[in-house]
Amino acid sequence: MLPLRGPTNYDREPPRHPSLTVNSKEPFNAEPPPCTLVASFVTPEEIFYKRNHGPIPVLEDPSEYRLEVGGLVSKPLSLSLEKIRMLPKHTVVATLQCAGNRRTQMSETKHVKGVGWGVAALGNGIWSGVCLYDILELAGITQGTTATLNGGKHVEFVSVDVCKEENGGPYKASVPLLQATTPSADILLAYEMNGKELNRDHGYPLRVVVPGVIGARSVKWLRGIYVTADECQGFFMQRDYKMFPPSIDWHNVDWSSRRPLMDFPVQCAICTPKEGAVHALGSMVTIQGYALSGGGRGIERVDVSIDGGKTWLEAKRYQKQRGDLYSSDTDNDCEKWAWVLWEITVQIYPPVDIIAKAVDSSANTQPEKVKSIWNLRGVLNNSWHC
Amino acid sequence: MLPLRGPTNYDREPPRHPSLTVNSKEPFNAEPPPCTLVASFVTPEEIFYKRNHGPIPVLEDPSEYRLEVGGLVSKPLSLSLEKIRMLPKHTVVATLQCAGNRRTQMSETKHVKGVGWGVAALGNGIWSGVCLYDILELAGITQGTTATLNGGKHVEFVSVDVCKEENGGPYKASVPLLQATTPSADILLAYEMNGKELNRDHGYPLRVVVPGVIGARSVKWLRGIYVTADECQGFFMQRDYKMFPPSIDWHNVDWSSRRPLMDFPVQCAICTPKEGAVHALGSMVTIQGYALSGGGRGIERVDVSIDGGKTWLEAKRYQKQRGDLYSSDTDNDCEKWAWVLWEITVQIYPPVDIIAKAVDSSANTQPEKVKSIWNLRGVLNNSWHC
Ligand SMILES: [Mo]
Ligand SMILES: [Mo]
Repeated sequence: MLPLRGPTNYDREPPRHPSLTVNSKEPFNAEPPPCTLVASFVTPEEIFYKRNHGPIPVLEDPSEYRLEVGGLVSKPLSLSLEKIRMLPKHTVVATLQCAGNRRTQMSETKHVKGVGWGVAALGNGIWSGVCLYDILELAGITQGTTATLNGGKHVEFVSVDVCKEENGGPYKASVPLLQATTPSADILLAYEMNGKELNRDHGYPLRVVVPGVIGARSVKWLRGIYVTADECQGFFMQRDYKMFPPSIDWHNVDWSSRRPLMDFPVQCAICTPKEGAVHALGSMVTIQGYALSGGGRGIERVDVSIDGGKTWLEAKRYQKQRGDLYSSDTDNDCEKWAWVLWEITVQIYPPVDIIAKAVDSSANTQPEKVKSIWNLRGVLNNSWHC
Repeated sequence: MLPLRGPTNYDREPPRHPSLTVNSKEPFNAEPPPCTLVASFVTPEEIFYKRNHGPIPVLEDPSEYRLEVGGLVSKPLSLSLEKIRMLPKHTVVATLQCAGNRRTQMSETKHVKGVGWGVAALGNGIWSGVCLYDILELAGITQGTTATLNGGKHVEFVSVDVCKEENGGPYKASVPLLQATTPSADILLAYEMNGKELNRDHGYPLRVVVPGVIGARSVKWLRGIYVTADECQGFFMQRDYKMFPPSIDWHNVDWSSRRPLMDFPVQCAICTPKEGAVHALGSMVTIQGYALSGGGRGIERVDVSIDGGKTWLEAKRYQKQRGDLYSSDTDNDCEKWAWVLWEITVQIYPPVDIIAKAVDSSANTQPEKVKSIWNLRGVLNNSWHC
């Protein structure tokens, strides 16, 4: 039996923070109150959203754990945790966002299937571990490889958890080999989160972190990585996490007609004040939220309206410190894979109708209405947030 | 005197194709009829949009031309055309798009400054030349460099043309050093276009091609490339080609508050039938256009409506051959820097109100109305096209 294994029942779940809103108990899916997200640039592990498809795996004996590296590689590997920790350690600040973030709001237009999520199915972590390209180099694949001589074009990540959707098999996903072997893509096999050993809820002992890409590709409780000719054929790559037009519903969906989602689009949400908060006439109110974009794109601007979109004000953006002005300029030491927090203080004359929207560094904008991007799985709702 | 020089008058302009719509005569700015764009995947040189800021430079004696490579490099170079042609030759299919494409439509909402452009200020070319990272390697800078030890962080491209906006100085622009030294970014110093020697209108004898980025960074008639500590301070980087919110106009603009535009957002336009074309009741009409996104992002979907947005149909997308289905999948041999052409044949019952919009591979969408993205310089109009 593997020392790392996915139990088939929920008897050994880790303790969770009481402030979490539980969207599904078994498997455990939960998000924090939105106001806690803007309390710090780095999201504490306790309140970092939990997204699972089965019981949390258990590592019986860390010394017996091995990461398998195989498939179309010239030098297959079996690496102990000790060996992995001896390789060069790399740290990346990256925001992971579930593709289902803001699904509940999309469902209000027209019902979608899937676990409901408010605006807090994301978090910003400091991830440390070994670079995926370093591991692949040990296995005989050089940097910047699109295809190996024996036809390898993808890197598949396989977990050990037990997923209903995989008929009891493990969660898996893949990324293109070129991305996996490009150092600036910063893909990590992480064993630390926020400077501490990764905890069970977030993938102990080892997880993938694919910056700038929907959370579904950052596989937790990693058992192996395999270089393959084809894209991963797992459920979550082929029958979920794809984007369809509003005209497609469950009766006419053809899953093979779409690519798996990877990079996410520009996104922004208001985290405080709470929806429906009451403000005294003329009071000064500080509005705070987050904005981010996929693929390493920065946030060029956050626009806030308090009159339902008639007029707009620009919010102040920051990353580490509230006072520091963020700029996605390459000269600036901005964290390219991390969210941007924003705030603006305005004098309020009720009724107020607050809206926020962002523009990314590629000048992409958010759609005004959820209707134009409605999709049957309720993924990637990045409409203007109000 | 340099063998390559920018004249100060328009006496030696090259001949131009009569089908071009001339938006400005001196300097020469022109675009082809939109229907010609969808006639071929590769845009013929004759009708490829022309975007200039001064008279077209003249190369008196090709044997005396030298490309200067300098600035913060350990080995400055002076390269003849002969030497450049002896280096490894690389070919990239890339669409160049002017940031002002579709400016005329933006101006209809509220006037913007700048040369007017319809929907044809772009073209797809086959560019051959030497890789920028190969040249930088010869100058002593290795692949994947973010900053050199002596502080180089940008690569500046300097032309020889005479620009009013530069007070008679040459056009210039820069890209981040990391992008310049990343092989997969595919930045070229091109001496061929569509398999022929580059012509004068498009930068003879040597031009930069920065795929996935607004055309303004692909400097023509290249005289030198310089590694610099700071981003290029030229007019077109600092006082133009930046994106402001709709609330900013010429009386309150602070150019230093924004970054120079680089990657462009998802874009799509209808090229045929012509606006206002009359269709017989019940006739079958083929609607054709282009779609593209910046930064190497593919086109995931093109939606077309013939009833003003009430219902949508998905268009067929292709690159090389009309019949081949395009997919941005990494397994597919799609051209990642090139546009996607699309078409759909529908039965028409007038009045028709045709709209087209695209979704890119990062799930970014186009804004419905131009109003939400209006900006004083009229750049990056990517609103739904009708
Ligand atoms: Mo997810
Ligand atoms: Mo341009």
